[in-house]
Amino acid sequence: MIKIGCANVIVGQSGGPTSVINSSLAGVFKTAKDAGCRHIFGMRNGIEGLLEERYVDLSDHVKNDLDIELLKRTPSSFLGTCRFKLPDACENEEVYQRLFKILNNLDVKHFFYIGGNDSMDTIKKLSHYAKKIKSDITFIGIPKTIDNDLSVTDHTPGYGSAAKYIAMAMKEIIRDATAYSKPSITVVEIMGRNAGWLTAASALSRAEDCHGPDLIYLPERVFDYDKFMSKIRDIQKYKSVVTIAVSEGIRTSDGKYVCESNKQKVVEDAFGHKYLGGTGLYLADFLASQTGIKSRGIVFSTLQRCASHMVSRRDITEAFVAGSDAVRLALEGKTGKMVTFERTSNMPYQIITSSCDVDLVANVEKVVPDEWITDDGTYVSKKFVEYARPLIIGELSPFMVDGLPRHLFID
Amino acid sequence: MIKIGCANVIVGQSGGPTSVINSSLAGVFKTAKDAGCRHIFGMRNGIEGLLEERYVDLSDHVKNDLDIELLKRTPSSFLGTCRFKLPDACENEEVYQRLFKILNNLDVKHFFYIGGNDSMDTIKKLSHYAKKIKSDITFIGIPKTIDNDLSVTDHTPGYGSAAKYIAMAMKEIIRDATAYSKPSITVVEIMGRNAGWLTAASALSRAEDCHGPDLIYLPERVFDYDKFMSKIRDIQKYKSVVTIAVSEGIRTSDGKYVCESNKQKVVEDAFGHKYLGGTGLYLADFLASQTGIKSRGIVFSTLQRCASHMVSRRDITEAFVAGSDAVRLALEGKTGKMVTFERTSNMPYQIITSSCDVDLVANVEKVVPDEWITDDGTYVSKKFVEYARPLIIGELSPFMVDGLPRHLFID
Repeated sequence: MIKIGCANVIVGQSGGPTSVINSSLAGVFKTAKDAGCRHIFGMRNGIEGLLEERYVDLSDHVKNDLDIELLKRTPSSFLGTCRFKLPDACENEEVYQRLFKILNNLDVKHFFYIGGNDSMDTIKKLSHYAKKIKSDITFIGIPKTIDNDLSVTDHTPGYGSAAKYIAMAMKEIIRDATAYSKPSITVVEIMGRNAGWLTAASALSRAEDCHGPDLIYLPERVFDYDKFMSKIRDIQKYKSVVTIAVSEGIRTSDGKYVCESNKQKVVEDAFGHKYLGGTGLYLADFLASQTGIKSRGIVFSTLQRCASHMVSRRDITEAFVAGSDAVRLALEGKTGKMVTFERTSNMPYQIITSSCDVDLVANVEKVVPDEWITDDGTYVSKKFVEYARPLIIGELSPFMVDGLPRHLFID
Repeated sequence: MIKIGCANVIVGQSGGPTSVINSSLAGVFKTAKDAGCRHIFGMRNGIEGLLEERYVDLSDHVKNDLDIELLKRTPSSFLGTCRFKLPDACENEEVYQRLFKILNNLDVKHFFYIGGNDSMDTIKKLSHYAKKIKSDITFIGIPKTIDNDLSVTDHTPGYGSAAKYIAMAMKEIIRDATAYSKPSITVVEIMGRNAGWLTAASALSRAEDCHGPDLIYLPERVFDYDKFMSKIRDIQKYKSVVTIAVSEGIRTSDGKYVCESNKQKVVEDAFGHKYLGGTGLYLADFLASQTGIKSRGIVFSTLQRCASHMVSRRDITEAFVAGSDAVRLALEGKTGKMVTFERTSNMPYQIITSSCDVDLVANVEKVVPDEWITDDGTYVSKKFVEYARPLIIGELSPFMVDGLPRHLFID
C-alpha cells in the first residue's frame, strides 16, 4: 500500500440512502487509515453540510474494528445526506471559493463522494474547478445507488441488496396472496423513476418454489391501459391470484406519469426530479373498478433501500471495495474519476474494479437494455436474470441486540 | 407419548396468514406422525375447502425432516386459508351434516384448526355440534394471529415475529429519514383493527442506537386531530425529523375510522370486519397540508405478517409447541379447547402451555391494557416493553437458495 503519509482526507455521502452506502464509507475509512492518513473527516449531510462547516473526525465515531463491522451493517447514510445541486462555477464562483477555503483550512488533499449520478455531477464540477485554480486536491466519486442507473460501471453498489430485498419481499407477498382461494390482484410499487432495474429485480423471485409476479412494468416502455387490462384478463383465465410489479415511474404515451392521474401536484427536488409514488395504489383502485375483484396496492417505499437486515453479501463486499479503491486512485494522483466495476465473467461471477472519467457518468441515466425486456413489455428476459442473479448472492448476518439489528450512529 | 394408534387427524389454517402459522402446522404434523397416526390430512383453505372436499394427505407434501424445517420457514398458510363464518347449527344444520359426513368418511378422529378468534368460533360451534350429535371427533384450536388479540393466552403465536419485523423496519425507516437534514414527517401505518399490540411493538425500536418513533397512536384511545397537531408542533420545536406509528384502526370520537375520511366506501369481510388501510397516507397528506413540511406515509401492509426471513426464534418455537400440544390435548380426549400460554416468569422469560375452553376465546378481542398506554395516549409504557421484548428474541436462519429464502409449497 502506498502511504498517504500525513495527508488529511474527507468523505461525504449524497443522494438517497442505501443499505450498503456505509460499507463504502467503511472502505474509505479503513483504507485511508491503514495508509497512514492523519485525519479522515466526514462531511455531515454532504457538501451542503460542508458549506456550513459541519464535519466530524471519523476516528471519533469509528473507534475500532468492531465499529467498522457495525458501520457496514448500518443502513442509510451514517454521515447524513443531502440533495444539493452545486451551481456552475461560472454562475456562482463564491460557493467554490468557500468550499476550497474550508478544504484548505482542514488541510484536505483527497475528497471522496459516495453517490449517484447527481453526486458525480458534484465531483465533476469540483475536479474541473480544482484544475482551473491549480489546486492539488483530488476528487474521486464512489458509485452508490439502489437504482443501478449509473453508466460505464457494470452495476452499482446498493443495487444488489435492494434487488435481493425486492425479490424476497415479492416472494413473501405472493405466498401471502395465494393463501386465499378468492380472486385477488396485488400491485407492488417499486422505486425507479426512469430506469426499471429495481422493478425488474422482482423477476428474481421466480424459482422452483415461486411463480414470481405475473406482469412486470418498467418505465423503459410506454404504459398502455388497454393492453394492461387485456393482459390481466388473459391471466385471469387460468389463475385467480394475480401479482403485478410496477415501477413508480411508468408513463403513458402522453409522457404523463401514471401516478400523476392521482395527484393534484407533483413536488420536485433540487435536481428537478419529481417525487413519485402512488402508482401502485392508483392502479389497484383502477383494477378494482375494472374487474370488481379485490385489489391491493403495496408500496415498498423506503423499506427497499434501508433493509440492511437482509443485504447481499456480494453487494456489501463490493461497496467496501469501491470505497477502498477510491482511496487507491487518490493515492495514485487521480482526480475527476469514479470507481467502476467490470464483469469479466458471469459463470463463475467475477469482476475487476477500474475507473472512468466522472464526466461520462454525471447526469447520465443507464436504463434496462431494450433486449432485456420482453417484446410486449410485460416482463424481463433470461438475460436480465443472468445479469442480476449473481448480485443478490450471500448474506451478512446483522449483529442482533435485544432481538433487533444493532446500528452505528452519530448523536 | 400416548399413541393415537391408527386414528386419522385433520388440520386446517384459517384467517390472516402469519410468518409462523406453518410452524404450528409442522408441530401438529410431526407430533401426530410420531404418535403413530395413519393419515394426517390438511384442509385446503380451511373449512371452506373442506366443505368442497379439498384436502391433502400431508405426508405427500412433507416428506422428511428437512421438509419440516422448510415448512417452519415458510410464511403464509401452507394449506391455504379462508375467511368463512360457520352459520349457527340452528340456522343451517345442513353444513354441519355435510362436514361431519366428510370427516367420518375420512375416518378422522381429531380436528385441529390454527387461527384467531374467528377461527375459534368455528372450533366452538363444531365441538358443540359434535356433543349434540354424540360424535367422538375432538376439536382443538391452535392460537394464531399477528394481532395478539386472543384472550386467556399470555400472547399468540405470530405476534412475536410481526412485532420483531415492525420494530426492525421502524428502526431502519427512522435511520433512513434522519439521514436528511431537511425537516420531514413519516407516518407508519401498522395493522390492528381494534387492538394496538402491533403498533405498540414499534416502541421496541427504541434502544441505545435509535430513539424510536416520536408518537404512537393505538386504536384503544380516541384519536383527536387538535391534540395530534399540538403534539407534532411540540416535537418540532426540538427535532426536525418526526416519525409516528399509527394503527390502521384509529378512530375519532364519533367512532369513525380515520382512514374512512379518505374513502368513498369501506368493504367488509364475512365476519363484518371492515378492510381498513389508508390511515397512514391520509395523515401524511393531512400533516403536509397543516405544516407545509414533506410528509411521507409508509404502509407495512402484508409485509408485516409474511416476513418469514426475520422471524422471532422464540415465536417460531412456541408456534411449533402450540401445534404439538394440541395433539397432546386431543390424545387426552379433550375437545372444544384452545392451547394457551401462561407466563410464569418474565426475567428470565418462562412460559408453560395450558388450555382453556374455546368459548372464552371465540369472538373476544383482547386489547392493550389501559395502564400500558401513556396518559396522553401517545406512547406505550415500560410495562408494555417488558411484556413484548422477550417475544422478539432470537432468529431462525432461512434456508437460502440462489440468494433468496426457500419455501415449501403445494402445487
